[in-house]
Amino acid sequence: MKRVAISIGDLNGIGISIALHSHNQIKKYVEPIYIIDKKMLKQASKLLGIKIPNDFKTISPDAQTFKIKPAKVSKKSGLYSFKSFQKAVKLAKAKKVDAISTLPINKESWAKAGVDYVGHTDMLRDFFKKDAIMMLGCEEMFVALYTEHIPLKDVAQKIELDRVVTFLIDFYNSIKPSSKVAVLGLNPHAGDNGVLGDEEKTIQKAVDIVNKKYQKEIFTNPLVPDIAFTPNSRKNYKYFIAMYHDQGLAPLKALYFDESINVSLNLPILRTSVDHGTAFDIAYSDIIPQNKSYINAIKYI
Amino acid sequence: MKRVAISIGDLNGIGISIALHSHNQIKKYVEPIYIIDKKMLKQASKLLGIKIPNDFKTISPDAQTFKIKPAKVSKKSGLYSFKSFQKAVKLAKAKKVDAISTLPINKESWAKAGVDYVGHTDMLRDFFKKDAIMMLGCEEMFVALYTEHIPLKDVAQKIELDRVVTFLIDFYNSIKPSSKVAVLGLNPHAGDNGVLGDEEKTIQKAVDIVNKKYQKEIFTNPLVPDIAFTPNSRKNYKYFIAMYHDQGLAPLKALYFDESINVSLNLPILRTSVDHGTAFDIAYSDIIPQNKSYINAIKYI
Repeated sequence: MKRVAISIGDLNGIGISIALHSHNQIKKYVEPIYIIDKKMLKQASKLLGIKIPNDFKTISPDAQTFKIKPAKVSKKSGLYSFKSFQKAVKLAKAKKVDAISTLPINKESWAKAGVDYVGHTDMLRDFFKKDAIMMLGCEEMFVALYTEHIPLKDVAQKIELDRVVTFLIDFYNSIKPSSKVAVLGLNPHAGDNGVLGDEEKTIQKAVDIVNKKYQKEIFTNPLVPDIAFTPNSRKNYKYFIAMYHDQGLAPLKALYFDESINVSLNLPILRTSVDHGTAFDIAYSDIIPQNKSYINAIKYI
Repeated sequence: MKRVAISIGDLNGIGISIALHSHNQIKKYVEPIYIIDKKMLKQASKLLGIKIPNDFKTISPDAQTFKIKPAKVSKKSGLYSFKSFQKAVKLAKAKKVDAISTLPINKESWAKAGVDYVGHTDMLRDFFKKDAIMMLGCEEMFVALYTEHIPLKDVAQKIELDRVVTFLIDFYNSIKPSSKVAVLGLNPHAGDNGVLGDEEKTIQKAVDIVNKKYQKEIFTNPLVPDIAFTPNSRKNYKYFIAMYHDQGLAPLKALYFDESINVSLNLPILRTSVDHGTAFDIAYSDIIPQNKSYINAIKYI
């Protein structure tokens, strides 16, 4: 059974509730090691009114403990969640665990704590000096993002032949897909033969180069973006390469919001994550946060 | 009962089959008048092996008749479909019908016939000298497009205050929505407070101006695009304003491809249409084209 380090996320949010509620379920799939101090764990369990399972194995993140304040953006909580994540990454790098799974952090709290990264993936890129690929989805479909958190106006100029080729090769080597992967065009109607933009020519060239390199039809020609996700089209593909954030994530989340997870590819370690935030609005309330995304993040490992 | 002129679309495609198969169904909702010659109708009905219903009322498009060639891009068929559409528009303008509904045309055939428009909406804009709004969707949700058939790289610069204000006012006056309308941001995470683009500020200003003008909360603040279409968010809205083609149509078609219709708003006449093409691959074959979109286009009237 695989050993998985679970970074505990922002303790003012819903992460710890999900971890405690789901422990008995996830231990069927993996051997979880939670990166949290016993003291913080006790505090959270008391606040939540959930008993700590006997086999809830923890490792300290070596961070300063603090008083949990539900739903509060805070420097202390931000730093704690960062240290928990950092420890998980180091354990994976040292091969003491087989993978990591991350519970949600609060970006504002990270900023308050002086953490210089906008999120988990950003830190992983810097830590491993590798161009991580962000992929979101669930068993039914996964979407990998060619560009992520950049303004829409900057997307088109990022479609450069070398970059697309590298991305496709990295994706292929990370996933080794057993069926054809859908590559989306950039423009409406995939450019309609150049009338509505011509970045599809670059994408097409990149696809041709990579398919030729591996002597296989791995990737499709650039598909019409708003047709690629129709029910009929989805029957043909499990993996989609989207050229930009909302092109891929708007349809994915319209279809599979609750089930979806976030996977970091093209790194020396495997990292999965829930695809939701700290949900401060329901943190430490009577509402039990739903855990479909968390369970799927664990199962993916 | 409303009188509706139905332009017959490209006779080498599936339009006429849909019209013949669905006549008994749509006459429950409207009084249809098909813009096709008796001669062409007989030819098609024979080829399809479908009897012409007794009450299948027609008006000639005053175009040259021709020999139907299933699935063929052709000048004659292109011109015929254009004339059929033109006649329907003229009947509506003259108030001889209450609305028009259009069956699919082939854009290449229009081009071959020297028709200077890329599609129906384009012709309507020119004919009425009005800025038609393209809206797609079904009973569950409708998406109106702020920009349509332009390259992705040109989208951001189209977000200008005056244009957005005019669009929102035109949309409001066309629909008179009874519940709040979702307005999408342009950038991932709706710009994340300007970190990922700042066009949301312009959209926000436009929303504020229009809501103030009508003294009502008609439009939302710019929503995070990939969250706006999640199941929970969709519970709150029937109408969505997308800033660009694939932002709105990729999620719409992922969810409701078969049911969706196309509506032209902000014109002196009402025009609805199926949201699919001529489907040459199944034209005049044993496969009966499905008519959900057509029925919905008629029901919308």
